Amino acid sequence: MKHLDYMRTAISMASATLGQTNPNPAVGAIIVNEGRIVGMGAHLRAGEGHAEVHALRMAGKEASGGTAYVTLEPCSHHGRTPPCADALIEAGIKTVYIASQDPNPLVSGGGVAKLRDAGVTVEIGLGEEEALGLNKMFFHSITNKRPFVTLKSATTLDGKIATRNRDSKWITGEEARKDVHSLRHLHDAILVGVGTVISDNPSLTTRYGEGLSPIRVVLDHHLRIPTDSMVLTDDSVETWIVTTKDAVKKNDRTFQKHVHVIEVSQNSILIDEVLDLLGKRNITSLFVEGGSEIHGSFLEGSHFQQVITYFAPKLIGGRDAPTSFGADGFSMMSDAVNLTIESVEQIGQDIRVIATRKENA
Amino acid sequence: MKHLDYMRTAISMASATLGQTNPNPAVGAIIVNEGRIVGMGAHLRAGEGHAEVHALRMAGKEASGGTAYVTLEPCSHHGRTPPCADALIEAGIKTVYIASQDPNPLVSGGGVAKLRDAGVTVEIGLGEEEALGLNKMFFHSITNKRPFVTLKSATTLDGKIATRNRDSKWITGEEARKDVHSLRHLHDAILVGVGTVISDNPSLTTRYGEGLSPIRVVLDHHLRIPTDSMVLTDDSVETWIVTTKDAVKKNDRTFQKHVHVIEVSQNSILIDEVLDLLGKRNITSLFVEGGSEIHGSFLEGSHFQQVITYFAPKLIGGRDAPTSFGADGFSMMSDAVNLTIESVEQIGQDIRVIATRKENA
Repeated sequence: MKHLDYMRTAISMASATLGQTNPNPAVGAIIVNEGRIVGMGAHLRAGEGHAEVHALRMAGKEASGGTAYVTLEPCSHHGRTPPCADALIEAGIKTVYIASQDPNPLVSGGGVAKLRDAGVTVEIGLGEEEALGLNKMFFHSITNKRPFVTLKSATTLDGKIATRNRDSKWITGEEARKDVHSLRHLHDAILVGVGTVISDNPSLTTRYGEGLSPIRVVLDHHLRIPTDSMVLTDDSVETWIVTTKDAVKKNDRTFQKHVHVIEVSQNSILIDEVLDLLGKRNITSLFVEGGSEIHGSFLEGSHFQQVITYFAPKLIGGRDAPTSFGADGFSMMSDAVNLTIESVEQIGQDIRVIATRKENA
Repeated sequence: MKHLDYMRTAISMASATLGQTNPNPAVGAIIVNEGRIVGMGAHLRAGEGHAEVHALRMAGKEASGGTAYVTLEPCSHHGRTPPCADALIEAGIKTVYIASQDPNPLVSGGGVAKLRDAGVTVEIGLGEEEALGLNKMFFHSITNKRPFVTLKSATTLDGKIATRNRDSKWITGEEARKDVHSLRHLHDAILVGVGTVISDNPSLTTRYGEGLSPIRVVLDHHLRIPTDSMVLTDDSVETWIVTTKDAVKKNDRTFQKHVHVIEVSQNSILIDEVLDLLGKRNITSLFVEGGSEIHGSFLEGSHFQQVITYFAPKLIGGRDAPTSFGADGFSMMSDAVNLTIESVEQIGQDIRVIATRKENA
C-alpha cells in the first residue's frame, strides 16, 4: 500500500464516525511498521480517547520505530485527554503523516512543532483535500464560533413544496426521506420554524436505521407552539424553543424537562443572533428543514454554507403554490447567491443536489 | 463487426440528421457484403432520397447478395419517392435487418411483407429501443396527429424563473443557453405566449453554431403583439400568431409575408385546439419556451410528452417570485403529473434534467 492508501483508510474510518464526535472533529489514525498495519483507531466520542491513542494502544510495542498516518494534526495541549503528540513520541513513532493542520488556535502548529522538536519526521498535506472536506463543519464552527448551516429542501421539478392548497404529502419518495434521516444524524441540531411544527407536526428524529437524533430547535416568535406537538411530547431528545422576551412575558407556559426556552435580546428573532446563541451552546452543525419563510431568512442574510435540495419527478403547477425559499427574496438577479454544485445524484426516484456557497463567510 | 454494431452505425447516422428531415423520420441504412460495408446512407430532407436509396447507390453492383441494416421498416408505397422495399429487392439484397417497424398505417408491415414475398430474409427488432427513441417525436406525431411537445424551463435552484421584480437576466450560464439553441434545431416549431414576446422580445432562432430555426408560434389572445417584436421584424423564419376571431375582428393589423395569423374556433385559446391546428400544418415536434402561465396551461391538460429543465446553482428567494409552471396548478399532490427521469447532466455550471410523462397519451 502507498502512503495515500493508508491515509485514505484513516479518512474512511473517521468518516464513519461523523455525527457522533461533536463538538470534536472526526479523526482517524493508522500505524504502520515494516509494511504491516499494527494499529488503527478513530475518535469515537467527545471526552474519550483520541484516534492516535486508540491506534497506539492496539499497536503496543510494535509502534516503536513505526509510521503514523493521522487525518488531523495531533493535539499538543492538555484538554479532556493528554496530548497525542506526547503519546506518539513516547511510543517511539519515527514518522508522522498529517492530512490537515488543526484550525483550532489552541492547537494549530503546536503538535507539529512538538513532534519535530523530539526528532520525529513530519509530513503535512497527504490527502488534505479529503480530510478538510470530512471536517468542513467542524472547521467552520471553530473558525466562526457558529454552526455550519445546511439548508435542506424538497420540491417538485417545478420548484413547489406544496400545492396551492398547501397539500405536501408526499413530494419525494421513501428513499429520499430515508436519506434525510441519515443527514440529520450528521448534524448537532435541526432547526424549523413554528409554522412547520403547526402544519406538519414532525418529530424531527432520526428514525430509519441506526443514528443519533440531533437537538431540535424551533423558532417561535410568539411562543405559540401547540402543547401536543411531537417535539414537545416526544422527550427522546432536547427541544430548544427560541422566542422573544415579550412572548415569555405574556406567557406563563411551562414545559417538560427536555424543553428549553431561549430568549433572544430583541423583539424579533434575527438569524444572526440565533447562530451566535447556538454556537455558544456548542452546536457545530445545523440542519435547517424550513419552511419557506425560514429558508428565505437564512438566504437573505447569506447565513448558510450548504444547500441540499431534492427534486421529485413531478409537476404540480400553480402561481400561488409555495416554493422552498420564500420571504421577500432578492430583487435583482445580480443579487442572487451563487453556489458551487458539489454533487448531483439520483436517490431512488428523486434527484439530490448538494451545493455550497461560493464564498464561505 | 456484429449485426448490432452495423445497426448502431446506421442509428448514429440517422441521429445526426434529426431536425432536418421533418415531417419525415430520421433513417439510416448500411449495406454489408462479404464482411465489408459497401453502402451507407441516411435520409437528409423530405422529398429527397430515402436512406436505403442512398446506400444502394453507393453500393452499386456490390449490393447484390448483401445484407441491409435499416433503422426503420422500408416503405412499400409510392409516396414522394418510389418504394424502398422494391429497390432492395431489385438490387439483390438477401437479408434485411430492421430496427423498428413503421408506425405509419400506410406503411406498417407492408415493406416487410413485400420483402418476404420476394424471398428476402427479414429480421425485425435489432437495436429497436434505440431506434424507437431516435424517432420518438415522429412516432408520436404519426400516431396522435399532433406534435410531440417538449416543455423547456430554466430556474434557480429554488425554482424561480425571475426575481420578485421580474428580473431574469440571467438565470443559466452561456453553455446552457447554447444547449437550448441545439434543442430548438431538433423541433419543427417553438411556442411562446405573447407575454414572453412583450417582456423578453426574443428572436427565437437557432443562432449558436449551425442549425435550422423552427417556425415560431405565438399564442396571442388579443392580437397585442408589439409591431417591433423580433419575431415580426426578423423574417428569416415564419411566425404564426394564434389568436381569437374576436381579436381579428377588432383589429385591422397587417403583417409582413413571413407572418401568418391563425384563428381558433372559440373566443379563448385552448391548448387542445392549438395542438390539432399545428398537427394539421405538419408540425411534428413543438418546443414550448414559456412563460409560466403557458407552461401551466400545458400541464393542466397534460398536453406534453417531455420536460427539459435547467437548474442554475443560484438562490434568489421570494414568495412572490414567479416559477416555471404557473396558472392555477393542481390542488392535491395526488393530482401531480408523474415523470420518469431520462437523464441528469451538468451543462457548464448548470444542471439539465430531461424527464418524460409516465403515461404518454
